[in-house]
Amino acid sequence: MRYSKTRPPAFTLSAGPVDAYPEVLRGMGTTVLYDFDPAFLHVYEGVARKAQTAMDMNEPPVILHGEPVLGLEAAAASLIAREDVVLNLASGVYGKGFGYWATRYASRVDEIETDYDDAIDPGAVAEHLKKHPETAVVSVVHHDTPSGTLNDINAIGQVVADAGALLIVDAVSSWAGMETSPAACQAGIYITGPNKCLGCPPGLTMAAVSDAAWEKMEANKDAPFASMLSFTDWKNAWKASEPFPFTPSVAEINGLDTALDRYLEEGPEAVWERHALTAAATRDGVRAMGVDIWPKREEIASPTCTAVRMPDGVDAGPVLAEARARYGVSMSAGRAETLGKLIRIGHMGPTAQPAYALVAVAALGGALQALGTNADIAAGLGAVQARMDQGL
Amino acid sequence: MRYSKTRPPAFTLSAGPVDAYPEVLRGMGTTVLYDFDPAFLHVYEGVARKAQTAMDMNEPPVILHGEPVLGLEAAAASLIAREDVVLNLASGVYGKGFGYWATRYASRVDEIETDYDDAIDPGAVAEHLKKHPETAVVSVVHHDTPSGTLNDINAIGQVVADAGALLIVDAVSSWAGMETSPAACQAGIYITGPNKCLGCPPGLTMAAVSDAAWEKMEANKDAPFASMLSFTDWKNAWKASEPFPFTPSVAEINGLDTALDRYLEEGPEAVWERHALTAAATRDGVRAMGVDIWPKREEIASPTCTAVRMPDGVDAGPVLAEARARYGVSMSAGRAETLGKLIRIGHMGPTAQPAYALVAVAALGGALQALGTNADIAAGLGAVQARMDQGL
Amino acid sequence: MRYSKTRPPAFTLSAGPVDAYPEVLRGMGTTVLYDFDPAFLHVYEGVARKAQTAMDMNEPPVILHGEPVLGLEAAAASLIAREDVVLNLASGVYGKGFGYWATRYASRVDEIETDYDDAIDPGAVAEHLKKHPETAVVSVVHHDTPSGTLNDINAIGQVVADAGALLIVDAVSSWAGMETSPAACQAGIYITGPNKCLGCPPGLTMAAVSDAAWEKMEANKDAPFASMLSFTDWKNAWKASEPFPFTPSVAEINGLDTALDRYLEEGPEAVWERHALTAAATRDGVRAMGVDIWPKREEIASPTCTAVRMPDGVDAGPVLAEARARYGVSMSAGRAETLGKLIRIGHMGPTAQPAYALVAVAALGGALQALGTNADIAAGLGAVQARMDQGL
Amino acid sequence: MRYSKTRPPAFTLSAGPVDAYPEVLRGMGTTVLYDFDPAFLHVYEGVARKAQTAMDMNEPPVILHGEPVLGLEAAAASLIAREDVVLNLASGVYGKGFGYWATRYASRVDEIETDYDDAIDPGAVAEHLKKHPETAVVSVVHHDTPSGTLNDINAIGQVVADAGALLIVDAVSSWAGMETSPAACQAGIYITGPNKCLGCPPGLTMAAVSDAAWEKMEANKDAPFASMLSFTDWKNAWKASEPFPFTPSVAEINGLDTALDRYLEEGPEAVWERHALTAAATRDGVRAMGVDIWPKREEIASPTCTAVRMPDGVDAGPVLAEARARYGVSMSAGRAETLGKLIRIGHMGPTAQPAYALVAVAALGGALQALGTNADIAAGLGAVQARMDQGL
Repeated sequence: MRYSKTRPPAFTLSAGPVDAYPEVLRGMGTTVLYDFDPAFLHVYEGVARKAQTAMDMNEPPVILHGEPVLGLEAAAASLIAREDVVLNLASGVYGKGFGYWATRYASRVDEIETDYDDAIDPGAVAEHLKKHPETAVVSVVHHDTPSGTLNDINAIGQVVADAGALLIVDAVSSWAGMETSPAACQAGIYITGPNKCLGCPPGLTMAAVSDAAWEKMEANKDAPFASMLSFTDWKNAWKASEPFPFTPSVAEINGLDTALDRYLEEGPEAVWERHALTAAATRDGVRAMGVDIWPKREEIASPTCTAVRMPDGVDAGPVLAEARARYGVSMSAGRAETLGKLIRIGHMGPTAQPAYALVAVAALGGALQALGTNADIAAGLGAVQARMDQGL
Repeated sequence: MRYSKTRPPAFTLSAGPVDAYPEVLRGMGTTVLYDFDPAFLHVYEGVARKAQTAMDMNEPPVILHGEPVLGLEAAAASLIAREDVVLNLASGVYGKGFGYWATRYASRVDEIETDYDDAIDPGAVAEHLKKHPETAVVSVVHHDTPSGTLNDINAIGQVVADAGALLIVDAVSSWAGMETSPAACQAGIYITGPNKCLGCPPGLTMAAVSDAAWEKMEANKDAPFASMLSFTDWKNAWKASEPFPFTPSVAEINGLDTALDRYLEEGPEAVWERHALTAAATRDGVRAMGVDIWPKREEIASPTCTAVRMPDGVDAGPVLAEARARYGVSMSAGRAETLGKLIRIGHMGPTAQPAYALVAVAALGGALQALGTNADIAAGLGAVQARMDQGL
Repeated sequence: MRYSKTRPPAFTLSAGPVDAYPEVLRGMGTTVLYDFDPAFLHVYEGVARKAQTAMDMNEPPVILHGEPVLGLEAAAASLIAREDVVLNLASGVYGKGFGYWATRYASRVDEIETDYDDAIDPGAVAEHLKKHPETAVVSVVHHDTPSGTLNDINAIGQVVADAGALLIVDAVSSWAGMETSPAACQAGIYITGPNKCLGCPPGLTMAAVSDAAWEKMEANKDAPFASMLSFTDWKNAWKASEPFPFTPSVAEINGLDTALDRYLEEGPEAVWERHALTAAATRDGVRAMGVDIWPKREEIASPTCTAVRMPDGVDAGPVLAEARARYGVSMSAGRAETLGKLIRIGHMGPTAQPAYALVAVAALGGALQALGTNADIAAGLGAVQARMDQGL
Repeated sequence: MRYSKTRPPAFTLSAGPVDAYPEVLRGMGTTVLYDFDPAFLHVYEGVARKAQTAMDMNEPPVILHGEPVLGLEAAAASLIAREDVVLNLASGVYGKGFGYWATRYASRVDEIETDYDDAIDPGAVAEHLKKHPETAVVSVVHHDTPSGTLNDINAIGQVVADAGALLIVDAVSSWAGMETSPAACQAGIYITGPNKCLGCPPGLTMAAVSDAAWEKMEANKDAPFASMLSFTDWKNAWKASEPFPFTPSVAEINGLDTALDRYLEEGPEAVWERHALTAAATRDGVRAMGVDIWPKREEIASPTCTAVRMPDGVDAGPVLAEARARYGVSMSAGRAETLGKLIRIGHMGPTAQPAYALVAVAALGGALQALGTNADIAAGLGAVQARMDQGL
C-alpha cells in the first residue's frame, strides 16, 4: 500500500506547521466581526488576558499579525539601535539566522557559536559579556527547531541580566510544550507563537516585552513605526478602548482564543507532561532501533521535537519520502545546515501523545529498512512501550 | 429592545473586516498540513493558479502572509529606490497614508491631492508627469475605503505607462467586487487581498508584479530580502518545487482556496452585479431619506462600500452606536480625516446582497431619527425597493 | 438580478428547517466520540441537564434520535392504549395530522376542529370532557406551524388536568421562541426539538414525560420497546451510568449542547423578546402593505412564524418562487390545506432579528407586485421600522 | 501519565460511532437550507445519486433519517407480512437481535444459529429452504459487529434467490470498508449507513430495496406508512420534484454529501485496501502477543473491526478502562453475549490506517500486562510492522 503524494498524509508528525487541535480549527471558523465592533474589541482584550495568564506575565503580551518570524525580525528592527553591539548565540540554524537580522541593524555583532548538535554554555556567555561590557543586546533561541536542541535560557538570562544587557529570546517552538516563561529567563523580548505547542495554525506572534525593552525601543529613533515590523504600534492595541493600527487577523485571533481556553483548561503541567513523555518515548525508541538522536546529550533534547541523526551515508530526503509513501506519516526535514542530515519528529500540541511515538518510530525504522539500512524496529517499538508504561 | 455590546451584532455590514462566507470559514478549518508536505505544496500551487485566473493574470500573483497593509508597505520598500522620485495620488486617507511610506524610501515624493470626497483627475497626472519626467513611481488607491470613492485607475494607468513610470495600485477593497485587474490598469504592482470582496478574514496579501517591476525591485539594492517586507523572497514560492522562505499561513491559504473556488463558480460577473446593485440601492435609499452620500459624484461612488455623509452637526460615532444598539447592525466608522464625518456601509462578499440595503438604510435612518435628525425612512426604504426591482 | 435555483438563497426565512446558528454548526463538527466512551457519557448527561434547565423541568427530558415527528409518533404509539378514547384538537394541519396517528392506536378518536386560521376554545374542550369522561388522552398542537397560529395550551392543560386525562402537546415550533414549558401546561407528554427556535438542524426530539404518563406508558402492553418508537427504551439513557439502547446521533447531540449553552447564555427572556418583536414587526409590515395575515386574531398569531394570507386569486407558489428569484429570500409554503393559500415567514433562532422583517416584507411585497398584485411596500417597510422602534 | 475520563481520549479506535473524517465534520456545518428550497432539493437529489454510485446501484437508495437500526426495524416492519415465515440467520448478537423484530411481524420465525465466533454455512441455509419452501424472507447480518465476524452474504444471497425468497441484509458495518453491494448479494433490502466505514456520525440509514421487495412491501397492508418506520413514504423523496414526507436531517445529509465525494474521490478499492491491511496488521499483532482473535477462522474476520478474545479469566471491562487511562485509546466493548469476553478495535473510515494497528496493539497489550496478563508486546508490534511492510 502506497500513500498518494497529492492527498493529505494519514499522520502529520511535523515540527510545524503542526496538525492543529480540532477545536482550534472550529474556533477559526467563528463569525468574523468588524475589528472596531465593541464585541470584537471585547474578545481581543479577553484573548490578550488569557495569553497573559498562559505566559505567566503581569501584562498582556503584544500580538503581532504574522507568524513568529515577523516577531523576530521586528524585535531585531525595534530593539537594536544603530550604535548597538549585539551578542548572538548560535547553536543551530535559527540562532545563526537571527545573526543576519542583528547584523542589519547593529553596529557590531559578536557571535558565540557551537556545533549544531550542542548547546550554548552560559559560562561562555558570562565570560564574553565581561570582556565586552559594551554589549547591549544578546539574542538566543530556546529550542533551535532544526536541531531539536534546547539552550538553557534561564541560566543565560541570569548572566545577561547581571551584565545589564537585554535578551531577545526565540521561544517559538518550546513555549506551551514545556515550562518556560518570559519572567523565568528575564527576557527583554520573548517571542513565541500559537502555531507550535499551542496547536494553532501559523499566522500570529505573541511577544513579551519588558519595561526596559520598551524604553530602549521607544528611545530608538530607527525603530519601525507605522510598519508591519513595529512593536510600538501594537503596544496598547490589546485594550478594548484603543484602536488597532492595522487590521488584525481576526480568524487567527479566534483560533488563539480557543487554543488558550483549551490549554488553560487541560492545565499547562498536564500538557507539558505529555509533550515530555512523547519525546522521551520517541528517543528511547529511536535509540533502541540502533539509530542515534541528533542532540549530543539527552538533557539538551527538546521535549517538543526529536531530531533523529541519519546513519552515515543516509540522506534524510528519501527516508522522509519513503515513510510518507509507505505509512502515510509526514515528518519534518532539517533546514539549511541540518538538511539531509536529520529527520524531525514533532511533538507539539495534538501530536504530543505518547502513542504517536509508536507511529513515528515505526515509520522511521520501516523507511530506513526499506532503503537498506538496518533498524531493529521491534526493539524500537518495545522501548517506546516501556517508556510509555514507565512514565517520565 | 437593545443589543448587547459584548455579544456579536446581528448584522455586520462593515467595510472590512467583513463577515466571511460560511464556506470560507469552514475551509479555514481544513486539516493543517506541514508546509513542506507534498500535498500542501500541491494545494498551494493550486491556490496560486486559481488566484491567477481570478485576477486575470498570466502568472500566479505573489501571496504575502499578512493582511494587505503588509503588501503595501512591502511594495513601497521594495520598488522605491533611494534615488527615486515618486508621485503619490491622494484622494483619501489611504492614498495620503501611502505617501508616508513612499517618503520613507524615496528621494522625493510629489503629491496630487484632492478633496477626500473627490477623485484624482487623470489629466492632472499626465500634466504632472510631463513636467516631472524624472518620476519613477506613481502610487494610487483604487477604492479609498475611508471615503468610499473610486479613482479611475485604468485611465491613470495609461497615463503612467505613457510616461514610462511604474504604477503601484492599492486595489484591496475593490478587487473581486467590481471589474478590475492588474492588466487593465497596467500596474507595476497591484495589491489586493482576499479579506474584502472575496469574503475571507484578513491575513493575506495577493500582489501582481509586472516584469518591469520585478526588474526594478531586483535592481534595488535596498529592497528587503529575508524579510517580511520582501517580495522577492516569495516570488517563486507558489511552485510546488520551491521552498517557502518562511512559514505560510496555512489556514488562511485554505480559506482562500475555498473563496476562489466559490468566486469562480458563482462567476465574477454575477458577483460584481450583486455588489453594484447593493451599492446602488443603498445610495438611492440614503438619498431618499434626505441624507447625502459622501462621494461628490455618483460615478465615483464605490460599488463595494457606501460612505454616508453625516448631516451638519451630527457626529457619526453616536449614530453608529445607536444603530448597533437598536437594530444590531454594525457599520464602519470613518478613519482619520473622515472619522466622525461619515458612516460606511460595506457591500463586500456575503453582504453584497441588495436586500441588506434595507437593513442598512433602516439602521442608519432609525439611528439618525433616534438622535434627533430627521430622516424619511419610509421613503428611503421605498427607494431601496425600487432600485432592487429596477436593477442596475 | 435573478438568483439561481441551484445555489443557496441569500436569506432563509423559513419556518423550519431554519438557518442554524453558526456556533451550532461549528458545534456539530466536534470530534465524534464512541458513544460508550466515558467522556461522551459525561457530555450526554451534561446536555440532558442543560435541556432540563432550558425546559424548566425537574428531571432531564427524554431525547429521541430523530426529528420531532418521531417524538409525536412515538407519543401516540406509547401513550395511547388500544382501549383508549382520545380527544384530538385540530386547529390546523399538524393538529389534524396527529388525529391519524391517534386513530392508529386508540379505540376511538373524538375531534374538536376549528377553522385553520382560528384556535381551539378551551371552554369547548372542558365541555367535551364533561360529556365524555371516558377520554384518556387529549392531544393539541401549541403552534400549528402551517397556519402560524397558537393554541392556549396552558388553559387547555388546566381543563385536561381537571378532567383527569393526559395531554400530549406538540410544542415543536414554539418552545424556545416564547414562554412555554411542560409544567405550565401540565403536559403528560410535551414534545419539542432543537430544530426550530433553538437554531439547530433537524434530527432530534426532546420530550418531557410526566410521572403519570410514564405510568400509563409502562402499563400499556402495546407500547413499543426495542423500537425507534419507544420512549421507555430511552428513559434513563441520559444517565452517564446507563447504556444507550441504540446509537445516539452524536453530532446532533454536540450541536444541541452548543445551542443550549447559547440559549442559556443569551437568556431565554431576551431570546423570546427578539422572536416576538420580529413577528410583530412583520405583521405590522404585512398589513400596512394592504395584505392580511392568516390568523384570524392578532393574539393567536405566533411569535415564531408569520403566516401571510394570499390575496384572493393569488397562489402562493409563484409568489414564493418570485421572492426567491428576485431577492434571494427563501420563505416557507403552506402544507396540505394551507398550501397555496399562505406564505410563512419564520422567526426562529438566528432569523428572529427584527431587521429581517424588512427583508421579508420587501420580498413578499415585491414578489406580489411583480406578479400583478398591489402592495404598498413603502408603507409596509415604514410600519416595520415603526414597530422596531416602538418595541413590543 | 493517566488520561482523564471526562476529556476526550487521544485515539478513538471504536467499532462505531467512529471518529468522523474532518472534512465530513466540516461538511456537517454547511448552511442549513429550508428542505423545500430548490437548492436543497437539488443537493438532496445529488446526494442520492452519489450514494447510488457508491453502492453500485441502478437507482438511488432510500435514505431514512435515523441511524441504521431505524432501517432494520423498518425493514422488518415493512417487508414481513403477518402471514410470512421468516428464516433468521444468527451468527452473533445483531443477527440474533433481528430475530426479535422478525418475530414481532411474522407468523413464524425459524432460525439457524451458530456459535458467535463462527459464520453461517450457506449450505445449511439451502437445506433449510428446501425443507421449508414456505419461507418468504431470510435475514442475515453481513458483519456481526459485536463478534467482528463476516457471513458470506453473496453465497447466501444466491441460495435465497434460488429459493425464491427475499433477503434482508444488514451491511451497516461492512459496506464502504470492503467490497460488498446490494446487487452482489441479490438483496431484497440491503441496509447500511454512513456512520461506519464512510466516516460520518450516526444519524442516517441508506437502504437498497429491490423491485421484488418494493412489490412485497406495497402489497403488505400492515406495512407502516406516515411513519418513521415506513420505506414507502421515502421511496421517491430523492427526486428534486417530490416532497419530503417528514423533515430530513439536513446536516447529516450535508455530511453524507461530503463523505460520498471523499469516498469516490479516494476510490473505493483504495479505501477497502487500507481497511483490510489495518485489520490484517492488527490480527497479526494481536496473535504475536500471544492473544487470540475472537473469530474462529481468519477468513471470517472482518476487515473493518478486529474482535480480540480475552484470555481465560480476563474481563474486558477493566482492560478497556486501563487502555484508555494509560494510553488515551478508546476501543469498543462487546455487546450482550460478547460483553466482557472480547474487545473490538474498529478499522472504519479515518481509523482504517495501518499505523493505527500499532496504537491498538500497544494499548491492548499494555493494558493486559498492567492487569497481570502476559503479552509479548514487542513481538506484537513487530508483527504489525511486518504486515504493514508486506501488504495484503
